[in-house]
Amino acid sequence: MQKDLKKYVIIVAGGIGKRMDSPIPKQFILLGGLPLIMYTINRFREYDSGIKIVVVLPEPEIGRWNSLCRQYSFKPEHIVTGGGERRYFSVKNGLQYVNEESLVAVHDGVRPLVSTGTIKRCFDMAALKGNAVPVIEPSESVREVDVKGINRRLDREKIRLVQTPQVFRSDLLLRAYNSKYSPSYTDDATVVEQLGVNINLVPGNRENIKITTPKDMVIAEAIIGIER
Amino acid sequence: MQKDLKKYVIIVAGGIGKRMDSPIPKQFILLGGLPLIMYTINRFREYDSGIKIVVVLPEPEIGRWNSLCRQYSFKPEHIVTGGGERRYFSVKNGLQYVNEESLVAVHDGVRPLVSTGTIKRCFDMAALKGNAVPVIEPSESVREVDVKGINRRLDREKIRLVQTPQVFRSDLLLRAYNSKYSPSYTDDATVVEQLGVNINLVPGNRENIKITTPKDMVIAEAIIGIER
Repeated sequence: MQKDLKKYVIIVAGGIGKRMDSPIPKQFILLGGLPLIMYTINRFREYDSGIKIVVVLPEPEIGRWNSLCRQYSFKPEHIVTGGGERRYFSVKNGLQYVNEESLVAVHDGVRPLVSTGTIKRCFDMAALKGNAVPVIEPSESVREVDVKGINRRLDREKIRLVQTPQVFRSDLLLRAYNSKYSPSYTDDATVVEQLGVNINLVPGNRENIKITTPKDMVIAEAIIGIER
Repeated sequence: MQKDLKKYVIIVAGGIGKRMDSPIPKQFILLGGLPLIMYTINRFREYDSGIKIVVVLPEPEIGRWNSLCRQYSFKPEHIVTGGGERRYFSVKNGLQYVNEESLVAVHDGVRPLVSTGTIKRCFDMAALKGNAVPVIEPSESVREVDVKGINRRLDREKIRLVQTPQVFRSDLLLRAYNSKYSPSYTDDATVVEQLGVNINLVPGNRENIKITTPKDMVIAEAIIGIER
């Protein structure tokens, strides 16, 4: 149907990251010998070598990014833009460069272990139904706490943990990001949802974790060790 | 108050585990050079060297367990008993050996990465309030699906993922496990909760994962590598 739509990926790495105990921002720490975010971008290029790439970085880090690209001979054509104070504003900045009807993936720069299978499932479903987000089932029991500190069991079978990439038809995503910022926007699905749109869930991959601590980094190295 | 209560831990490893692609049951796979379950038990002995240990294993694996204890000179006094078809019945079997007023921890045998801090927080809270379970906040956005396949955003701030050990005053736990089995019993908290008791939450530790796949095993090895 809409197989001919161009594909974009906005790699969001606008955050500074205070939990990494590292002098360099977490998105540039080496994973498998490559700055984390390059590793992440390569996953999308493996899925589609012609995908259009927009990288959102903290403004002060763009210089460092350019020199890392030279140092690691990282050649793919891409646009770099500055991030905002929150993820919402970083995505919005990236969206400025989406100027044609397309399918747009928004992906956390610090999720390098996304599989090409997950990426494909998201794009395929979004081509069909306008949007898709990857989810996994929790491996733990789940509880919900209320304001009074009371907590209750939730039915684990009904709960899903949401990953990225979250993929949308460009018109939908652009329209959604025209709205005013709300603190309830924890990801792109929640931004799009306020348009009254149903969100389509597809299976993610369990190892597609967000790297936020040095321990996560060691885990990621261990996982790519198996995958090689 | 009840500082003098004896402490028990029931290590539940009654399951067979079909996801491990291994000829030996997952609870016996080596972690840091030691069968997984021994590694788990040692975490509780580090917390309290006098803790009473009840190990629940699949009936046919008890012989193997005994020879592993000899092979690895695993000396701590403990009781071994056979597991049931579901976790609920395994715990119930283990509870037969709790025959004094005490605090009882129920812990998944395949969670070797529980910290002594987590164990302490659970026992301390249970001593004070009768029960405690360790939880972590999800690092992902959370959604809930309903029977019609529609899904909606949940407020992540209110969601907790539940780990073990779950610790209870013995009278409470024994009373709870006198009830008939229900499929909604996904952990001990849900069993106790049907008595109308409020469950107390304490912070767990993020790396306290359940080992269910070969990939989890590699992750666990990587984590203990840092901890050493």
